[in-house]
Amino acid sequence: MFYIVGERINTSRKKVQEAVVNKDSAYIQGDIKKQQAAGADFIDVNAGARIGYEKADMEWLLTVIQEVVTIPLCLDSPDPEVLEMAYGIVKDSPMINSISLEKERYDAMVPFLKEKDCSVVALCMDDSGMPESSQDVIERAGRLVKGLEGIGVRRESIYIDPLIQPVSTNTTKGIMAMDAVREIMSKFPGVHTICGLSNISYGLPQRRIINRTFLALLMCAGLDAAIIDPIDDKIMAVLKTTEMLMGNDEYCSNYLKSVRAGQIVS
Amino acid sequence: MFYIVGERINTSRKKVQEAVVNKDSAYIQGDIKKQQAAGADFIDVNAGARIGYEKADMEWLLTVIQEVVTIPLCLDSPDPEVLEMAYGIVKDSPMINSISLEKERYDAMVPFLKEKDCSVVALCMDDSGMPESSQDVIERAGRLVKGLEGIGVRRESIYIDPLIQPVSTNTTKGIMAMDAVREIMSKFPGVHTICGLSNISYGLPQRRIINRTFLALLMCAGLDAAIIDPIDDKIMAVLKTTEMLMGNDEYCSNYLKSVRAGQIVS
Repeated sequence: MFYIVGERINTSRKKVQEAVVNKDSAYIQGDIKKQQAAGADFIDVNAGARIGYEKADMEWLLTVIQEVVTIPLCLDSPDPEVLEMAYGIVKDSPMINSISLEKERYDAMVPFLKEKDCSVVALCMDDSGMPESSQDVIERAGRLVKGLEGIGVRRESIYIDPLIQPVSTNTTKGIMAMDAVREIMSKFPGVHTICGLSNISYGLPQRRIINRTFLALLMCAGLDAAIIDPIDDKIMAVLKTTEMLMGNDEYCSNYLKSVRAGQIVS
Repeated sequence: MFYIVGERINTSRKKVQEAVVNKDSAYIQGDIKKQQAAGADFIDVNAGARIGYEKADMEWLLTVIQEVVTIPLCLDSPDPEVLEMAYGIVKDSPMINSISLEKERYDAMVPFLKEKDCSVVALCMDDSGMPESSQDVIERAGRLVKGLEGIGVRRESIYIDPLIQPVSTNTTKGIMAMDAVREIMSKFPGVHTICGLSNISYGLPQRRIINRTFLALLMCAGLDAAIIDPIDDKIMAVLKTTEMLMGNDEYCSNYLKSVRAGQIVS
């Protein structure tokens, strides 16, 4: 199964920030319903854009979202205090986005994650910066898996993010991510891999075709989760077509259902 | 490098057959120029549709095509007599489409291929029918490589076609082809893999998105040639985007050139 984390509820998006400022719960709840209907498995909630208001904005968003949401949330914050508050509000076991190997962030997140019932996005970032090679990603993934399992997080709850870097700065960055995903999925059975896609196309025109084609290639390499906009019909069409071609759509039934719903157009 | 074999000159296509019947050389030459401009590396020529006229139609087509073509042709016929005639007309060393392991076809093709200067498409088909598993494809590929090398065909001139089968009849058929391509490219270094894509989507609606998404997945598995319509902007956009993401487009220059030409649209 491929897990879709819907990325739309983020106060860095203009309409979401306006809704938060104006306490427009109808807008937020409408967006949640759309993401659910489109097939999201988690809804990411990020309230980080208004400096000084993250905790209050997150609390308001979660309270409003809880009234309509039927799937788990992905609590997106680097601040354990915000996450503790958020964890207390949500009903379903959430995904936490994210921990990394940066010492300060790692040390701050560990006490929060200990004995919590949640899954966690783990970024292959450390204090030396972004990974330089697929071997580098794999080594960092190993440290994350070991560290998280050491504090009681089950392997099946770990979503490793290899960190996608722009192909415009170095043509090997696409292959590097594919190789890393393939190796992580084979070396740490049970672990998930996840990523956002948009960094791959940074600096290039017509970015959406790059992002969705890269999603297909990463799925071929074993990626089993992505943070995307489930309302984007074109990326969802590629996702569902790829799932079918990878043998994960019995009788092609999800594909056919999406075609009948007008969501997949040649 | 990825090799594009343009598939448009085929008398089973209505407009091509009309042009052949009416001796409309302008139509044929115009199509050839379009395929070349779109980036074809070979032009497939198939004159098999009018029973009893294959040799005459092929001869007329090649004579007309030779006046404008600047790239090699792919002579598409199961009949060695037609191929001998065609081989005598073409200027550049052609690709021959195709030999298979079916005994009658194999035995008929071997005398033609011996000591010819050409590359050859080799289908993983034998007298028992289509391959049943990726292992089956790989075993057949091994027999083809051994047989062709045995009569003097260089490995670099062999294009193995794993034979794409519809995912609608069996959801594992996509994965089977990807696994076969990956293994053939690793087991027989120097050999090429090639295929037509449209069988994958047989029996399903919105076929073109399936075909072009499958092309990206097969390229990820190592496929380095395909028989496609280079005038189809959408499949070419996926092909060029995938080439860039696979690290085969220095400075993203082909991608950027195609965007500027209006051929890649998100």
